[in-house]
Amino acid sequence: MHTILKGKGKDVVIGIDKPFVMIGEKINPTGNKKLAAALKEGSYDFALELAKRQIAWGAEVLDVNVGVPMIDEVEAVKKIVELLVANVDAPLCIDSNSPQVLEAGLKATPGKPLVNSVSAEEKSLSAILPIVKDRGAAVIGLTIADGGIPKTPEERVAMAGKIIERAAQIGIPIEDIIIDPLVMTVGSDSKAAQVTIQTIEILRREFGVNINLGASNVSFGLPDRQTANQTFLAMAIQTGATCSITDPIKLGQTIRAADLLLGKDDFAMRYIKYFRAAEKLKEADAVKA
Amino acid sequence: MHTILKGKGKDVVIGIDKPFVMIGEKINPTGNKKLAAALKEGSYDFALELAKRQIAWGAEVLDVNVGVPMIDEVEAVKKIVELLVANVDAPLCIDSNSPQVLEAGLKATPGKPLVNSVSAEEKSLSAILPIVKDRGAAVIGLTIADGGIPKTPEERVAMAGKIIERAAQIGIPIEDIIIDPLVMTVGSDSKAAQVTIQTIEILRREFGVNINLGASNVSFGLPDRQTANQTFLAMAIQTGATCSITDPIKLGQTIRAADLLLGKDDFAMRYIKYFRAAEKLKEADAVKA
Repeated sequence: MHTILKGKGKDVVIGIDKPFVMIGEKINPTGNKKLAAALKEGSYDFALELAKRQIAWGAEVLDVNVGVPMIDEVEAVKKIVELLVANVDAPLCIDSNSPQVLEAGLKATPGKPLVNSVSAEEKSLSAILPIVKDRGAAVIGLTIADGGIPKTPEERVAMAGKIIERAAQIGIPIEDIIIDPLVMTVGSDSKAAQVTIQTIEILRREFGVNINLGASNVSFGLPDRQTANQTFLAMAIQTGATCSITDPIKLGQTIRAADLLLGKDDFAMRYIKYFRAAEKLKEADAVKA
Repeated sequence: MHTILKGKGKDVVIGIDKPFVMIGEKINPTGNKKLAAALKEGSYDFALELAKRQIAWGAEVLDVNVGVPMIDEVEAVKKIVELLVANVDAPLCIDSNSPQVLEAGLKATPGKPLVNSVSAEEKSLSAILPIVKDRGAAVIGLTIADGGIPKTPEERVAMAGKIIERAAQIGIPIEDIIIDPLVMTVGSDSKAAQVTIQTIEILRREFGVNINLGASNVSFGLPDRQTANQTFLAMAIQTGATCSITDPIKLGQTIRAADLLLGKDDFAMRYIKYFRAAEKLKEADAVKA
């Protein structure tokens, strides 16, 4: 099953038979004061810089989140998307809880964007799916029920099924739904990663859908988060995750290694090319610093 | 299925329901000129230093290889084992191609040691298995046929079956055989890692045996071997590998992360403890340097 996203000048295909797709997470003001301040001032150049930097590090899709308190997010998403579309080819992933912000972002985006995200909560399904359908977009479906995040793989799979079914009812095909099975930290629940891994296994078997993961929650509160995140991502990719909203600078090399080890990189060409590009980018950063 | 190794003062249990066991690989003169020179001079203090350092980094078993050209290996293995046994509690893994060296090393070792290794080649089976049986040791079985390393998982599993059967005929129980399914570099064959992963899957399903891996061959000839090795090890552990002859300094944190993510480390206690110990060891190294 292939999820096809289209940017101004580039198509990206997500699928189990394709290399893993990195969706750059860094255009998001949460935890990024510099970006938050720029958005408050109506300045978008820094967002464009983040976009280019992530693409250089291998991001093929860019998540765009403009969630800053007290700004006009509808205006902000429109402006930022216009600037990105004028300067980069990558498909965009419009990231917001607000239907209005999503609509404005999607309207400004050419091709076929991704929506981040819908959940299996009634309120979310009824508000978000029609927007996805109207725009002909793809959407990330979070396995969150009305009562919260289910504890068992079976319940999470049921929530994925609910999203897929409700989407089908209004004409969104299953290949345009990327399920995110969510992961909680193993710092407080030692079974948390395995619940997610088992959810991925069942999702692949029962639905064959594409699967997105944010890999960094798994290590919340732990030391050496980098090693824990790399290890989890390797396991999740082996199990069937096909894309991740992530920081390519931190996890790009692990992702290229996973593709290589899964037999998706003949003669290690992509792996070696990525390593060389990363070395150059690090050198350039060292010169700047 | 549990493989139980016994040192002078410590038992180590290898099993799928147990944390992953690191077998320290560094007492091996191949590629270590300082150790090779020391062994030539009949000096074993450096080997003891390597032993203590690996234990500090989490090795629970120590591989002992004294393969240096032009020395009396029988004498060397006897001396080195005696020194190790007098100073460390960990079970030993006697590593040699020579039946005489294995016998001498095993004789000097108390408890229940491991033998590295037997293959499915006739010459190896007939020479090594009786030594393992006589000593009541456990043994690592390499999936090498008389014609070389088989290309397919099924053929490798057949070689594992041959070792297990021949061992059973002379009274070595299956739980004392740890199969090493071997891995070649993905640099020259993009399917190499998957052949090993699939071999692990079948071995677990058909025999339920413990599985050893040397993780570093997989990245031979590639850049950033550390990331490739970490990623492969994560995948292999998830699939069912239960121990590795490895460098704990390079891969210990990834192994602890894998245990944690597989739900084998309540409240991340071992992971956090390991991280803190590693920080202290790195600080001590920095002071020395």
